[in-house]
Formats: sequence, structure tokens, C-alpha cells
Amino acid sequence: MPDKIRIVKIGGKLIDDALKLEGFLGRFAQLEGPKILVHGGGRMATRLAKQMGLKPQMIEGRRVTSSEDLEIVTMVYAGLINKKIVAGLQAKNQNALGMTGADANSIVSVKRPPSPIDFGWVGDVVKVNLEGVQALLEKEICPIFCAITHDRQGQLLNTNADTIAAELAIACAKYYETSLMYCFEKKGVLSDVNNPNSVLGFINKQRYAELKVNKVVHEGMIPKLDNCFHALRQGVREVRVGNMEMVANEKAICTRLSL
Amino acid sequence: MPDKIRIVKIGGKLIDDALKLEGFLGRFAQLEGPKILVHGGGRMATRLAKQMGLKPQMIEGRRVTSSEDLEIVTMVYAGLINKKIVAGLQAKNQNALGMTGADANSIVSVKRPPSPIDFGWVGDVVKVNLEGVQALLEKEICPIFCAITHDRQGQLLNTNADTIAAELAIACAKYYETSLMYCFEKKGVLSDVNNPNSVLGFINKQRYAELKVNKVVHEGMIPKLDNCFHALRQGVREVRVGNMEMVANEKAICTRLSL
Repeated sequence: MPDKIRIVKIGGKLIDDALKLEGFLGRFAQLEGPKILVHGGGRMATRLAKQMGLKPQMIEGRRVTSSEDLEIVTMVYAGLINKKIVAGLQAKNQNALGMTGADANSIVSVKRPPSPIDFGWVGDVVKVNLEGVQALLEKEICPIFCAITHDRQGQLLNTNADTIAAELAIACAKYYETSLMYCFEKKGVLSDVNNPNSVLGFINKQRYAELKVNKVVHEGMIPKLDNCFHALRQGVREVRVGNMEMVANEKAICTRLSL
Repeated sequence: MPDKIRIVKIGGKLIDDALKLEGFLGRFAQLEGPKILVHGGGRMATRLAKQMGLKPQMIEGRRVTSSEDLEIVTMVYAGLINKKIVAGLQAKNQNALGMTGADANSIVSVKRPPSPIDFGWVGDVVKVNLEGVQALLEKEICPIFCAITHDRQGQLLNTNADTIAAELAIACAKYYETSLMYCFEKKGVLSDVNNPNSVLGFINKQRYAELKVNKVVHEGMIPKLDNCFHALRQGVREVRVGNMEMVANEKAICTRLSL
């Protein structure tokens, strides 16, 4: 039987709040066995961009990554946030090492085609190489991934953190019994966006289709849930969506997904 | 006989010039066998600080690291510069992974005491742990260190890159025949600061003492050369100071140091 591994993705709103981040890191450090953390960027990149006089360019509600934006997200994601998380985990006796997809050539992506919409320096994942990650896991060093990848031609690319978590989990599923957790500020997927306790405890493929047809699931959740089902179809054993309570507590309220 | 390892430190002026950095990375990628790169910060941190309206605070000609400065150097050193170098090496088929001293708990430092001069969030190295570094080297993944360490209590600390290179080399000397190279824009240690060709080809301990007494060596070189002799006394086999020509060319003009 293969080893178990857990991939945990932590969302931006938890990162922005120092106390919540501290609480999350404590729970993450308690998780036993091989594990990988993936973090988003939060609002720090936006704040820094504003301080530097840049204006975010949006197309159809989605942010375009200009050359200046790429420098900012590389600084904020791979520098500030990533290293704060690594140092915070070391203080809890959790050995950790921060990475982008360029590090150890672990996540290769291609720049998204400029047509029909040019999103700038945004990458779509094409390959995950686990060799470096596994060398670290064998030494009980936990890889901490931020949402930056590279194209192997020297170009860094801004990449969706949910996607990175799913692709890492899919790659791990070849070697490990893999559990993927999307950790954000809510208790799970809600049936009523205005009621934080309306958690859908269990969603399978069929129920997900119904929820989409009936527009029960909030629009912003759909790409996240699509990522979840993609991961399950590709061999990930278990996917959970919820707040930090679920990280080191199997019995915590959350949304469990299956095919 | 132990394996050989090379520790190369690259200075700020080479990093600031994209063409020179490209030339350096090409040479570094050509170096065979285990190797570690350590990089300084260049002027990018100063530029970013100015863009954000911060004024560098200097005491006795040395920069103080305020909380805001620490955030900036973490972003610029560990984020922007480190990941550009890693992606640049990957494009040359040199597998690499960027690190601070917090990553893999590799370099532990203590905050410099605030008396007699309070330099702020500056760390002095107290311990190097090579376990993570060696796991990477065994997979032919080259560690790329920036000039940030941690105190194991969750605090990142700004740390001199020359010192980091020397301390890594000293730690490596227990396991490897270790060569340390300080690579900057000049051909070596100059006997006449106004003549770029006045390279001192060889300096031993005695000659260094004479050069200091006679004030031949430029003041700014003294901390660098002190680092070099400290490393030699602690078991590092060979130390060289010069420009990028020496990196993959044993016969290039440079300054060779010995006890």
C-alpha cells in the first residue's frame, strides 16, 4: 500500500490575517506524514502594486499580468509570503522549504495564448516533476509552493494557486494515496451564500451537475470545484473544501467531494 | 577522497546588469559537479525602497534594516532576484532551487545585538544545516542562496551574502574538498584601485597583513578578504576572488588566497 500524502491549499484571506495564518500554520504543522502546502497571494500584491502607482488591468473581471505585475507577484508570492510561511513553520519545528514551479523544475507551464484574450504573463500547467519534491519529502522537509511557475525558457509565469494544488495532487497520486484540501475562510461549499452554516457536506459528480443547473453554487466556486473534480478523475483519492478547522481534524465540518 | 564542491558568490553589480547576469549564469551552468550559488541584492532593493517612499537609514556608512526594509529585501532577494536566477539556470538545463536560510532550516542566525549600534533586522550566522542542501545536491539540483536567514523563532533576518558564502563553504568543508569563489565586476584584488589590471595574483596570510598595514588593499575589500581567510582557517581548500571569467576557467586571471 502506498504512503499517504496531503496537499493543502490555503487561500488569500487567511494569509492576509496574521492571527489566522498563525492558527493555520499551527494546524498544518500538526498534520503527520508527507504533506505539501500551496498558497495564494492575498491582497498584498494589489497593495504593493498601488504603492508603486500601478493600476490593475482587468479583462472580463479577470486580472491581466503585465511585466510589472509579474515582478510584483514574484516578489510578494515567492518572496514575502512564501518566506514568512517557511519561517513561521520552522518556529513550530516543522521543517519546510519554499518553492516556485521553477525551483527543481517542479512545475512547467506555457504562457496562455494571447487570443481570444491576452492575460499577459499567465501560465497554464503542462508538466509536474516530482523528483525534487520527493527528495525533500524523504528528508521530512515540507515543500511550500507559491503560485508562480516557469516555461523552462527562463520565463516565470503567474499561475492559479488552485490549479497548482490540483496538478501537484494529480502528480502525487501516481505514487501516494493522495488527499487534497482547499482551505479558505468558509466552512465549506455553501447552499446559501448568505448563511455560513449552510455547508453542503457531500458533493458527487451528479450532485455537482444539479447544483450548477440550479445555480445553487456561487459562481466564484465553480472554477475551484472544477479543479476538485478534475483531480478526482485523475486519481486523487479524496478532496475536501473547508476552513482551517478541517486541516488537522478528520471530523470537522467541511464539504467532501467524490466522483 | 571526498567529492569536490564549489561555492560561488555573485555580487550585486553583476546582478543589476541583465547581459552580465546572463553571461555569468552560462558560465556557472558549465561548472561540473556539486555547486552552490550565493547572490547579493544589488541596487534593486534600494530602487524599490525609494519607489515606496522609504529613505535608507545609514549608521557609520552601513545600512540599517528596518521592518519595512526587511520586507523589501525579502521580496527582492528571495523573490525577484532569486527566482530570476533559478528560471535563468533552468533555461540552460541547470537544475536549481532557490533558498533562504529559513528554507530547510539551512542557515540559522541571531539578531545582531542593538548595542553599540542597532542595525535592526540583521542576523549573524550561528549554524549551518546541510541536510536539505545535500539531499538536493544528490539529485543534481543546485541550491541558490539569497542573503536572508532566520532565527528559528519565526523571524527572517537580513544577512551579509559574503558571510553566507563563507559559512556555507565552511560547513561543506567537513564533507567535501571545498572551493570558494567571490565573483564581482573586477578581475581580482587590485594593488591600485584605479588600475583594473593591477591584480594581485596571490595573497597569503602574511602578505594580507602587509597589504593592510601599507593600506594597499581598498578599505571596502577588507571585510571580504577577512571572510576569505576565515573560511581558509576553517578548512576551505581554496578561495578565489575575481570576475566571471574565473568561474569555469581555472586559468583565468584572479586573486588566489591561501593561509
